[in-house]
Amino acid sequence: MDELATEQEAEESHRQDSVSLLTFILLLTLTILTIWLFKHRRVRFLHETGLAMIYGLIVGVILRYGTPSSSGRDKPLSCSQEDRPFTTLLVNVSGKFFEYTLKGEISPGKIHNVEQNDMLRKVTFDPEVFFNILLPPIIFHAGYSLKKRHFFRNLGSILAYAFLGTAVSCFIIGNLMYGVVKLMKLVGQLSDKFYYTDCLLFGAIISATDPVTVLAIFNELHADVDLYALLFGESVLNDAVAIVLSSSIVAYQPTGENTHAFDAAAFFKSVGVFLGIFSGSFMMGAVTGVVTFTKLHCFPLLETALFFLMSWSTFLLAEACGFTGVVAVLFCGITQAHYTYNNLSVESRSRTKQLFEVLHFLAENFIFSYMGLALFTFQKHMFSPVFIIGAFIAIFLGRAAHIYPLSFLLNLGRRHKISWNFQHMMMFSGLRGAMAFALAIRDTATYAHQMMFSTTLLIVFFTVWIVGGGTTPMLSWLQIRLVCGWMLGKLFRVGVDPDQDPPNRTKQESAWLFRLWYSFDHNYLKPILTHSGPPLTTTLPSWCGLIARCLTSPQVYDNQEQLREEDSDFILNDSDLTVTYGDTTITANGSSGPHTATTSLDGRRTKSSSEEALERDLGAAEHEVASRGTRLVFPLEDNA
Amino acid sequence: MDELATEQEAEESHRQDSVSLLTFILLLTLTILTIWLFKHRRVRFLHETGLAMIYGLIVGVILRYGTPSSSGRDKPLSCSQEDRPFTTLLVNVSGKFFEYTLKGEISPGKIHNVEQNDMLRKVTFDPEVFFNILLPPIIFHAGYSLKKRHFFRNLGSILAYAFLGTAVSCFIIGNLMYGVVKLMKLVGQLSDKFYYTDCLLFGAIISATDPVTVLAIFNELHADVDLYALLFGESVLNDAVAIVLSSSIVAYQPTGENTHAFDAAAFFKSVGVFLGIFSGSFMMGAVTGVVTFTKLHCFPLLETALFFLMSWSTFLLAEACGFTGVVAVLFCGITQAHYTYNNLSVESRSRTKQLFEVLHFLAENFIFSYMGLALFTFQKHMFSPVFIIGAFIAIFLGRAAHIYPLSFLLNLGRRHKISWNFQHMMMFSGLRGAMAFALAIRDTATYAHQMMFSTTLLIVFFTVWIVGGGTTPMLSWLQIRLVCGWMLGKLFRVGVDPDQDPPNRTKQESAWLFRLWYSFDHNYLKPILTHSGPPLTTTLPSWCGLIARCLTSPQVYDNQEQLREEDSDFILNDSDLTVTYGDTTITANGSSGPHTATTSLDGRRTKSSSEEALERDLGAAEHEVASRGTRLVFPLEDNA
Repeated sequence: MDELATEQEAEESHRQDSVSLLTFILLLTLTILTIWLFKHRRVRFLHETGLAMIYGLIVGVILRYGTPSSSGRDKPLSCSQEDRPFTTLLVNVSGKFFEYTLKGEISPGKIHNVEQNDMLRKVTFDPEVFFNILLPPIIFHAGYSLKKRHFFRNLGSILAYAFLGTAVSCFIIGNLMYGVVKLMKLVGQLSDKFYYTDCLLFGAIISATDPVTVLAIFNELHADVDLYALLFGESVLNDAVAIVLSSSIVAYQPTGENTHAFDAAAFFKSVGVFLGIFSGSFMMGAVTGVVTFTKLHCFPLLETALFFLMSWSTFLLAEACGFTGVVAVLFCGITQAHYTYNNLSVESRSRTKQLFEVLHFLAENFIFSYMGLALFTFQKHMFSPVFIIGAFIAIFLGRAAHIYPLSFLLNLGRRHKISWNFQHMMMFSGLRGAMAFALAIRDTATYAHQMMFSTTLLIVFFTVWIVGGGTTPMLSWLQIRLVCGWMLGKLFRVGVDPDQDPPNRTKQESAWLFRLWYSFDHNYLKPILTHSGPPLTTTLPSWCGLIARCLTSPQVYDNQEQLREEDSDFILNDSDLTVTYGDTTITANGSSGPHTATTSLDGRRTKSSSEEALERDLGAAEHEVASRGTRLVFPLEDNA
Repeated sequence: MDELATEQEAEESHRQDSVSLLTFILLLTLTILTIWLFKHRRVRFLHETGLAMIYGLIVGVILRYGTPSSSGRDKPLSCSQEDRPFTTLLVNVSGKFFEYTLKGEISPGKIHNVEQNDMLRKVTFDPEVFFNILLPPIIFHAGYSLKKRHFFRNLGSILAYAFLGTAVSCFIIGNLMYGVVKLMKLVGQLSDKFYYTDCLLFGAIISATDPVTVLAIFNELHADVDLYALLFGESVLNDAVAIVLSSSIVAYQPTGENTHAFDAAAFFKSVGVFLGIFSGSFMMGAVTGVVTFTKLHCFPLLETALFFLMSWSTFLLAEACGFTGVVAVLFCGITQAHYTYNNLSVESRSRTKQLFEVLHFLAENFIFSYMGLALFTFQKHMFSPVFIIGAFIAIFLGRAAHIYPLSFLLNLGRRHKISWNFQHMMMFSGLRGAMAFALAIRDTATYAHQMMFSTTLLIVFFTVWIVGGGTTPMLSWLQIRLVCGWMLGKLFRVGVDPDQDPPNRTKQESAWLFRLWYSFDHNYLKPILTHSGPPLTTTLPSWCGLIARCLTSPQVYDNQEQLREEDSDFILNDSDLTVTYGDTTITANGSSGPHTATTSLDGRRTKSSSEEALERDLGAAEHEVASRGTRLVFPLEDNA
């Protein structure tokens, strides 16, 4: 009977599903065990993501060449349909009706060798999985774990790098690649269409940097916090910019062949689309981040679950509205860390942090091991040596044209300059990672997109391995302050470039803007949105008394003193400035008062931010030294 | 151009995907908020799962009747194929090739009204999602959070209820339903085939009880721990039995029409399949649970991630080998709670517990809200009043034939009898939940299976709402000891049935078997598999000295004293017996020594288990009383 055969086939398919998932889980397990070994032995030339890719590659080779190809029962069926394919198809097979769903178009040359191997097909995921399931926790975690103080201190530069820089990089890479494509057409190496917009799209895709490897090493070595903030901030916003940029380019695309002639109307339309999507996503993320108003203090499980669901729904809501979920979830993470976090119970704070840490860790390593796998198991690769070499040169030039001129311009305005060695380090840290991969795999329908995907994959491999492995030598070569130097610098004013850091000129750049925002946030937003902050009754003018009393949460009065501690992480306080740069104290707003050690109403000790930061650094350094024993006191020398 | 249209269609489809996921997330959010409200106001007539179903129902109605149906471009394509459908299809549409994948068979009568509505199609998940993604965390959590002491004390009865009871219930329900089907055929209400094996399968599906509602109320009211252990243990193993039973029946099925004639060979083959699958899954779960040997103490993130991956890989490994993943993951959870848990760092212990708590919570509420939704959005419902009424009678009779005779037999052997009110409560608590639903939705290809699915859905609704709401009245009506009565009973020997609980006859049943296992586990397995337990050098004979030293972890020597505390949760200790039943102390094995309060080497205070249990109970009662204020001191009276 046929039923039996169909059932057996379904069972076999289910078994293969399990095996393919199992493959990934074993890959991750192997990665975790090796990471542990590496951490234990303090190996730093290979990051966990690089490792995940290597394991993925090995398994990819095994799957590609070690598994038998299936019977190949897929013969083309020549049915005359209308001009467009149906999304579902009903097929009459000897009296029974079977339903089929559309999977995608296949180029005519590939009909006979497409997906012959069941196992290879099973390990190939729907690209939407990356966008809807794996990227959101990674991006949310980035926003939620943002070290706000240093981020906001460098916000101006970060925004410039992320927006202007990415746009510059995208256009330069796009135009260079268009030259490469023209060249390939001339020598007859290009057999299919490759539009100018495709090149621009490639520029957008490949402009999303992901210095996860570099940042992990920075974190471990306690490298310069400002450089860390610049790199981290740039890469986080960068992803958001790149994803919106690529959507705008796709929206611009269908106008056809002649778009390499500059079309002002279409260009401005694209810019409009970009701004619309970006600001929409930003607003949506910020608003839902603020809306997550948890008052479920007694039930940490409910609180955590709600927090998780709200973050994810921000993503989906933005996608459903035609905005960009990744951008929304990023700003949702940032606002939640700033407001909602204060409303959570103590248990939920650690729960949410830990939950997203685990999710982020698993998702990231999964993506990287999938990349390794995809190099061999992906069925539609298009490797073109000319294109690949051109792409490597283009990303190098694009990165250079992005970092150096922008840094020069920024340094004109910045009091605390971005030094040459910082600029070189930023140039060097332009790794490409999960976001570039996810953007590239999203659409591999045409010849151009397939070539772009294969090239992106190689660029990710190269940058993660080479740049990731070279970070520690590079840091010491560029003489960037590591933990000991940095701490000494803090305590005894022995920085690497003491001239660039004059003690009597350091306020953070754009100080007026942020002091304005800070006092607005501190006096009005925090009391309204969280249980902390000064009561509105004290900050609003007296004629607003009634409204103030309605909007202030009763807990605010209890928590009034705690606020200073939490705020101190958000923005550079004056007392912090004092210790960091030995500056004279400038009081931001009268209400915040002197930041000396105080005891809050509920008995918790409230330290001034500088005390805390110092203690944290000392503790970290002590831990570092203790755990390495006598082997490594100055990490700089160990790795030189 | 066509490309543009296809792209827009893909975007529209992506948007609908987002909206459908968003629907579920909003459902869950709504459920969480309402649960919080209910917990806050101590509402007990509706459990969170019942609530999730109601919200699901409402949204289902909206989706069904509120969304427009799509353009209906699905016309049957009459292509002559071979006798079996291909899994993938290539279709030539005006020169371009499109790939389609097989989705399933459609009965001829339904061709024209199938899946007209895109939105309804989007909210219908692949049944494999339930099995591979949602059930594993639920089942694992059940195993991992098992209260081992009371579970093992009642293990004999639990096994009897789960294995014998479920088999009895399955056969009785199956045979009764076959009678109903015969009746329906006589009166001409049945238009399609309905085999005897289908009826048996229905029996197996519907025999999986899931008293999540009852147990939640038990937990909240601190009802009798033995009854809790019996119900919880039965339902946990029950699920495992039902799932394996249904697989065995499916394996037995394809022999055709005449299987209602008793076929001894096929029957024994099924029994063999059952035993093979069950023991295989059990072994696999237990072994991988033991293998997860984490020594990553310094890195809780890696440890947690590894723990999570290993648990999931157990599931997938079992599925890939043709065993039952759910059973494997259950026993994996139990062994991990018993061995691996001891090897985890303190941070990872709370992390893993919290992680699985959140996952379990989300998965469970998702399944229940999906059930509510499915009543309206599922497209292939087959409601037959006769079948439904028959099923309700059959499950009632099946449950009765399972509980009462078995309890009678068990009471012959048990020292600590299962009283009548306990039996009635168990009879009453036979809810059907997530497992029955997941089993029923797994295969809805034929007419019989569709009818079974619709009926199962109704049974789940009915039992969750009615039984869930009736638990508190039932508990007080049956005079089952709640927190105050129970504690008084413990302290002053004023139980409900003091005659059945004579102080000089209570050792746990099967004591000899468990004491044997306990001493083996304590002396050999624990020291080998964990960092706790007495060093093997002290428990093995002296001539094994060398092996003993190799196998013993160095931490064992440090942790030696801690073990007693941890063990005390696993099995009934003597000191525990003393307090609970006022019995005279019987020492299990000389090595464990007297269980009085001691101080362990690392300075942690080690309490005897009875002290701890008592403190816990008192604390809970205090909390209960404190949080209710003067409103409710005796919960029994509050709900009567």
